[in-house]
Amino acid sequence: MYGNLIDQLIDSLRVLPGVGAKSAQRMALHLLERDRSGASRLAEMIVESVDKVGRCAGCRTLTEHEYCAICSNNSRLPEQICVVESPADLYAIEQAGSFRGKYFVLLGHLSPIDGVGPEQLGIDQLIESLKTGAVNELILATNLTVEGEATAHFIADKAKALGVAVSRIAYGVPMGGELEYVDGGTLNMALQSRKTL
Amino acid sequence: MYGNLIDQLIDSLRVLPGVGAKSAQRMALHLLERDRSGASRLAEMIVESVDKVGRCAGCRTLTEHEYCAICSNNSRLPEQICVVESPADLYAIEQAGSFRGKYFVLLGHLSPIDGVGPEQLGIDQLIESLKTGAVNELILATNLTVEGEATAHFIADKAKALGVAVSRIAYGVPMGGELEYVDGGTLNMALQSRKTL
Repeated sequence: MYGNLIDQLIDSLRVLPGVGAKSAQRMALHLLERDRSGASRLAEMIVESVDKVGRCAGCRTLTEHEYCAICSNNSRLPEQICVVESPADLYAIEQAGSFRGKYFVLLGHLSPIDGVGPEQLGIDQLIESLKTGAVNELILATNLTVEGEATAHFIADKAKALGVAVSRIAYGVPMGGELEYVDGGTLNMALQSRKTL
Repeated sequence: MYGNLIDQLIDSLRVLPGVGAKSAQRMALHLLERDRSGASRLAEMIVESVDKVGRCAGCRTLTEHEYCAICSNNSRLPEQICVVESPADLYAIEQAGSFRGKYFVLLGHLSPIDGVGPEQLGIDQLIESLKTGAVNELILATNLTVEGEATAHFIADKAKALGVAVSRIAYGVPMGGELEYVDGGTLNMALQSRKTL
């Protein structure tokens, strides 16, 4: 409609998550009308990132170096490993600020229907690293969804067979959460997982 | 936080309208984790568009050719010109489907505080084209905002001085609009602009 090239730009913006036809149109026109230098910089950064960003040889998170900043930080405790689904989850835990160990990033969860099995998630690599005996606790922080739970159970079974202590992050009512507004599933979990005082 | 390069990618995604820190992070990780070929295509399209898309020599809309598809379409009536603020407005009118004339795209509105005067909007070029006498009606379809109104008045004065008929798109209650939910300003305008049946 806008001419071939602009239509193709609009179409290619739709690879971004949460961007539909209308937002893509708005973005394309904004870039061309008002911010061509920002657009060029964006294109450059995409090309450079796609070219250089790979996975950390230690924890499989996304990084442009061989080892990410956390894996190459000697003050982080190598005996605790926190398993997360994505770099965004890793970032959220880092922001929370209390965890001092290292991570293992699956970049996904088990999903046989999409062809995602243990190999795709690097679970073999994780299990191999447990065999060295350097790790004494594996903290499973996959999402509290059906797939996240299945992934956690799968890893837990493998790790327990090697005698490594395995824990799962707690389910319950969020901090500052008012019981009135918390969903039933969470409340039931919070009751079942109650702690003796 | 994610490493220099990924942080730069996140930052550069924020040139897109409506994209804040959190969405930019989600977009960057999505591209790198799941859609590198889409990301490369996006970068390519941005580079090509920034390089090739310029303005139509006739109506000033964005196009990769010298004249846009509408200006070079001989079945469009050259005697009616519809003035809009942006290519998105032009597209909205085209989608509506009833207008058979040509367009003039200002790419903005008068805004002295931002240094946008008649020259930046190509109003001189528009007035020059009216002098040829080929145009017998100028339809002002700038937005119904303070700036859009000011721009419409400015163009109307110049066009009337040349004896060209000038019209403004109608204000009123939108089609299918329930009066109960229409804002007061629109209702007042609809009453003032009432038509005798």
